[in-house]
Amino acid sequence: MLVSALLTSLGINSGLCVLFFLLYSIISKQPSNYEVYVPRLLAKGNSRRRSHFNLERLIPSTGWIKRAWKRSEEDILSSSGLDALVFMRIISFSLRVFSFAGIIGVFVLLPVNCMGTQLHEIDFTDLSNNSLDLFTISNVNIGSKWLWIHFSAVYIVTIFICYQLYNEYKYISSERIAYFYSSKPQPHQFTILVRGIPVSVCSSVSESVETFFTEFHPTTYLSHMVVHRTSKLRNLINEAKTLSKRLLHLQSEPSQHTYRHIGLFGQRVDLVDHYGKKLVDIEQSVRLEQSNVSLAEETRAAFVSFKSRYGAAIAFHLPQSTNPTQWVTEQAPEPDDVYWPFFSSSFMRTWISKLVVIVACILLTILFLIPVVVVQGLTNLSQLETWLPFLKSILTITFFGQVITGYLPNLILQLFLKIVPPIMEFLSSIQGYISHSDIEKSACKKVLWFTIWNIFFATVFSGSVLSKVSIFLEPKNIPAKLAVAVPAQASFFIAYVVTSGWTSISSELFRIIPLIFSLVTRCCKNTDELEVPSLPYHRDIPKILFFGLLGITYFFLAPLILPFLLAYLCLAYIIFSNQFINVYMPKYETAGKFWPIVHNSMIFSLVLMHAIAIGIFTLKKLSIASTLLFPLPVLTLLFNAYCRKRFLPIFIAYPAEVLIKKDKEEASVPAMAEFYDKLVTAYRDPALMPIQYSVNSESLNRPLMSSADF
Amino acid sequence: MLVSALLTSLGINSGLCVLFFLLYSIISKQPSNYEVYVPRLLAKGNSRRRSHFNLERLIPSTGWIKRAWKRSEEDILSSSGLDALVFMRIISFSLRVFSFAGIIGVFVLLPVNCMGTQLHEIDFTDLSNNSLDLFTISNVNIGSKWLWIHFSAVYIVTIFICYQLYNEYKYISSERIAYFYSSKPQPHQFTILVRGIPVSVCSSVSESVETFFTEFHPTTYLSHMVVHRTSKLRNLINEAKTLSKRLLHLQSEPSQHTYRHIGLFGQRVDLVDHYGKKLVDIEQSVRLEQSNVSLAEETRAAFVSFKSRYGAAIAFHLPQSTNPTQWVTEQAPEPDDVYWPFFSSSFMRTWISKLVVIVACILLTILFLIPVVVVQGLTNLSQLETWLPFLKSILTITFFGQVITGYLPNLILQLFLKIVPPIMEFLSSIQGYISHSDIEKSACKKVLWFTIWNIFFATVFSGSVLSKVSIFLEPKNIPAKLAVAVPAQASFFIAYVVTSGWTSISSELFRIIPLIFSLVTRCCKNTDELEVPSLPYHRDIPKILFFGLLGITYFFLAPLILPFLLAYLCLAYIIFSNQFINVYMPKYETAGKFWPIVHNSMIFSLVLMHAIAIGIFTLKKLSIASTLLFPLPVLTLLFNAYCRKRFLPIFIAYPAEVLIKKDKEEASVPAMAEFYDKLVTAYRDPALMPIQYSVNSESLNRPLMSSADF
Repeated sequence: MLVSALLTSLGINSGLCVLFFLLYSIISKQPSNYEVYVPRLLAKGNSRRRSHFNLERLIPSTGWIKRAWKRSEEDILSSSGLDALVFMRIISFSLRVFSFAGIIGVFVLLPVNCMGTQLHEIDFTDLSNNSLDLFTISNVNIGSKWLWIHFSAVYIVTIFICYQLYNEYKYISSERIAYFYSSKPQPHQFTILVRGIPVSVCSSVSESVETFFTEFHPTTYLSHMVVHRTSKLRNLINEAKTLSKRLLHLQSEPSQHTYRHIGLFGQRVDLVDHYGKKLVDIEQSVRLEQSNVSLAEETRAAFVSFKSRYGAAIAFHLPQSTNPTQWVTEQAPEPDDVYWPFFSSSFMRTWISKLVVIVACILLTILFLIPVVVVQGLTNLSQLETWLPFLKSILTITFFGQVITGYLPNLILQLFLKIVPPIMEFLSSIQGYISHSDIEKSACKKVLWFTIWNIFFATVFSGSVLSKVSIFLEPKNIPAKLAVAVPAQASFFIAYVVTSGWTSISSELFRIIPLIFSLVTRCCKNTDELEVPSLPYHRDIPKILFFGLLGITYFFLAPLILPFLLAYLCLAYIIFSNQFINVYMPKYETAGKFWPIVHNSMIFSLVLMHAIAIGIFTLKKLSIASTLLFPLPVLTLLFNAYCRKRFLPIFIAYPAEVLIKKDKEEASVPAMAEFYDKLVTAYRDPALMPIQYSVNSESLNRPLMSSADF
Repeated sequence: MLVSALLTSLGINSGLCVLFFLLYSIISKQPSNYEVYVPRLLAKGNSRRRSHFNLERLIPSTGWIKRAWKRSEEDILSSSGLDALVFMRIISFSLRVFSFAGIIGVFVLLPVNCMGTQLHEIDFTDLSNNSLDLFTISNVNIGSKWLWIHFSAVYIVTIFICYQLYNEYKYISSERIAYFYSSKPQPHQFTILVRGIPVSVCSSVSESVETFFTEFHPTTYLSHMVVHRTSKLRNLINEAKTLSKRLLHLQSEPSQHTYRHIGLFGQRVDLVDHYGKKLVDIEQSVRLEQSNVSLAEETRAAFVSFKSRYGAAIAFHLPQSTNPTQWVTEQAPEPDDVYWPFFSSSFMRTWISKLVVIVACILLTILFLIPVVVVQGLTNLSQLETWLPFLKSILTITFFGQVITGYLPNLILQLFLKIVPPIMEFLSSIQGYISHSDIEKSACKKVLWFTIWNIFFATVFSGSVLSKVSIFLEPKNIPAKLAVAVPAQASFFIAYVVTSGWTSISSELFRIIPLIFSLVTRCCKNTDELEVPSLPYHRDIPKILFFGLLGITYFFLAPLILPFLLAYLCLAYIIFSNQFINVYMPKYETAGKFWPIVHNSMIFSLVLMHAIAIGIFTLKKLSIASTLLFPLPVLTLLFNAYCRKRFLPIFIAYPAEVLIKKDKEEASVPAMAEFYDKLVTAYRDPALMPIQYSVNSESLNRPLMSSADF
């Protein structure tokens, strides 16, 4: 790739970004789009749908950019919770790291690379005509002493990143503890989930739980709630919901055709009447089913609540039974966070479904390469013509040829990648996790490794799927192969940051899909229904982390990537900060449990970078440097092991010290009695709540009692 | 190797075994050797040192063999504890497995191998002149359909072993629980060890512990005992001990030279007087040091005792502090089992020393090959002559040549191997373990992997150290390389079982080293001192497990190994059963914690066998079979993962159910008050106990108050 090509791409994408920003600042001011751009403010009632026209609406403003950039952490924490703060910290952490690496890269490494003559001498008279490769380490002469500067840079940046990682882990774990101290009593703090409850012939699950916990936890046990199989019920309730919506729509517009012929020769029926009757019928069967379910259909799982957080922690931490596959305990999620479908209760089923999902994920990750390779085949026109000869006449037209080779492959690839997070979320959901947050965390990991494999390694190592896999079966040769393949793709990834990174982040701001969806459904939508979205962490965290990986691995190979990356991160900071104010509302709170994923990803990036560096120095015939680099990955992994010991336990469970202090603090608070009353019913399956759609329509928007009022 | 050679070796070794048995049954009856052969009975007072001569003494008897073979498990359990039972179960488990595999191997696989003509047709007229290789799988023709029998055997035996492993794990974990239920209250059940105690400027470690546990475990906390640095004190006490021994020796033989010149021109001194004075001096300084130590020199570690087992378990399982490197808890060992030297208290030091030891172990394991290779060079006479030309004249004498090439290498190798368990034990002891049992468990694992690497892999893959290591860096090629190398060594390992196995087990019976030691020191030994040894599990478990590995990997390659292996196991069963009656007395009880090591080793052997089988079938051009074998290692590993979930937790800590039941049982026992009193001082460092050697000599044999009376 030539510098000029990069500049063109840069121009186009900067233009697009500016355009997106301008459009956003106009479109988002139109009241009809408030649902898309400020649903959160709408839901809070902070932003009214002004209907009168106003010239100000059409003038782009920049105030929001400044507001978003200057937003304080306390503000984010108080309005969006710790998870949002952690998300913003990922970006600000990357900004810090790549600012430091950027200074070294651009002002020290880049001049060294340019001075080299290995590939070619740089033509300073016509800069834009130079190949981008001249700015990479490939241009440094073999055996050159200048490579020691790269060597030092690798050491310095690794130390800097590790130092930052340590501080960040420390900061976030202290924030996590502080968050816990400042939280009100919440049902999930007092509750555990027990699975694999053994049942004797003559007793029910509920009796079994009662007996066990009154015997072994007599002082702390409060109550329990057995989980039921409610998938049938759930379908009925959904049916009732749809029907009542349709009914409401019909009632609100009485002018429209409310009569219809029923049956082949049937008489005309009043549809409102008809639907109303049907709804009453369904509600009847829901009630019948509800009473049946609570008697039979118990799963061998139950939420068990305790009188204190410490009591719940004891039951969670201690192995309960002589058979470790029975009475398996885990921390309960927030009541709203429970994922009721796919509630697997037995140890074996959970274990097997986990194994199946892991295999499915690995297969998906590896086999995803096949469509990618086919799509990339599109870039090769002549090959396409031999595959699909009937296209020959069309492809000879330059315009079509350019579209097909230039944009289509990338577009198809991006579309393919768009469906990955939902697929991974689905896979995680059948893996046996009991909460939306766990599902999302697991999906986040899956998407991250998927991205690293299918974008980084698939691009770097061309060839068949098997040949890629086989590289990792010969660990000895990995550095050498990386050293050849990775620098060769430097210009591709620089362009990738500019095109894919900048565009995707702008489209996040512009919310194209929700906007289109809103435009399409606007005509027939019930305006009272407003769903405030939550940020899909499993989609966005892997994206940012992948750019982090690119930055860390390429900073010494092709320092030119860093300015573009920094621009991306600044955009991301502004846009996500803005979206947290206006759009996203947290649905649950993991209190920073996403950070360990970030930490591990950074460590992986570092070690990958070291492997590449070792390979490069060997290739450049500076074997002392590559030998001297060997301790670095080892030390990095030791650093990671230390961090796992020092910080990770805090992210798994709160320590006794904290729990007891918090319990003591609240022991004398009079509101606790009321809280315990609520706690008893907090984990009731929403499908078992009494429903009422037929008579009054007011209850429609809140048909399920939520436990958010705790 | 020819069949005749094997027969010769078999003859010699069987003869040696019979000789050892005969000698043992005579020598062990001589009262002067009771210390060596029946120290346990002596200590119990069951066996008197009869001094009158008796003809019976000189006639070998066989009754003890029958007694040892027929000994019931209850008997072993009650007299030697659960660890001894587990040890015997390793042997009986192997006996069961290899009887089954032996029947398949000898009656099905062996005839198939013999029918093949790949190497050569068997000369049935002169059996003993055939090569042993003709009885192995190498002789089956390439592509032969008969190989499917081997394929089925691999599947059947794997399933059988897994089934047996499951049952055994289940049996031993239930025994472990039963053992706990039947045990009396013991200090280590009520105590945890806390390390990394944070200390503020104005308070001592003891105060810090007191404050923390009274605040966070007010209802269950009983007492604590801070650990002190006592290495200096320990040296002084040892000095006092030696001195008092010497004094006692002098006093008991007043005739011997009790006068000596002191200094160059010194006067004659009464040595008894001199030593007596010196002893009093040392005791004075011990007392001084003891009072100093208890004031200063506190380490940041303490044994904390609780009022109930459940209370101790809660403190052990729950993370205590917001900084997980502080207040690190672990289960306390039995008071006698505590390893007082090298008591590292800080998290960082423990962690670093662990890392250092791991590196040292890996280096030792890999570099040990160098002396082995040098020693094996001795078998090559001509090479030896070029190395050490001055030996040329000696080596030409046939006798010396035969000794040097035939016996010396093996002898040196065995001597080298003899020092490995002590080295590994030393390495484990500086790794930060706090009990002898943990040290031994860790040493057991180390010795096992050392043995597998340095005997199995070093023999199988000839070549330099680096070339061996590099094989494992290309995992893809491992099966192919194993398939070539492993069957080639079949005859070596058959001979190994006969020579090394049979001889080592007979020498265990004969206790050569203790016998020699006893003969040498008999003249100048204090006869009152009798130390009953305990079985060094870290020496013997790896030995048996290694023969298990040989059996599993070779059963389908060279079924001829199995009869010899079975003979070895029968010998081992008889001899160890006998030694548990007469010789070994357990020093501590881990209640079966060695079993998980055995289980893992068996699983490793199975997967190794599968890898070899896959390689073999590929080599024999039966690629369908090798493809169909792929699920087997995967299923085996899944089985192992399941067992880890199902049984391993029981071996780490007792479940709440068991602890609470046991606590309740004892709540009303009046003896508990007395027990609590003893518990408070149970974990006092023996070096801090008052000592008294100088005045009365009676206290000599029990100078340190032991806590065995609990």
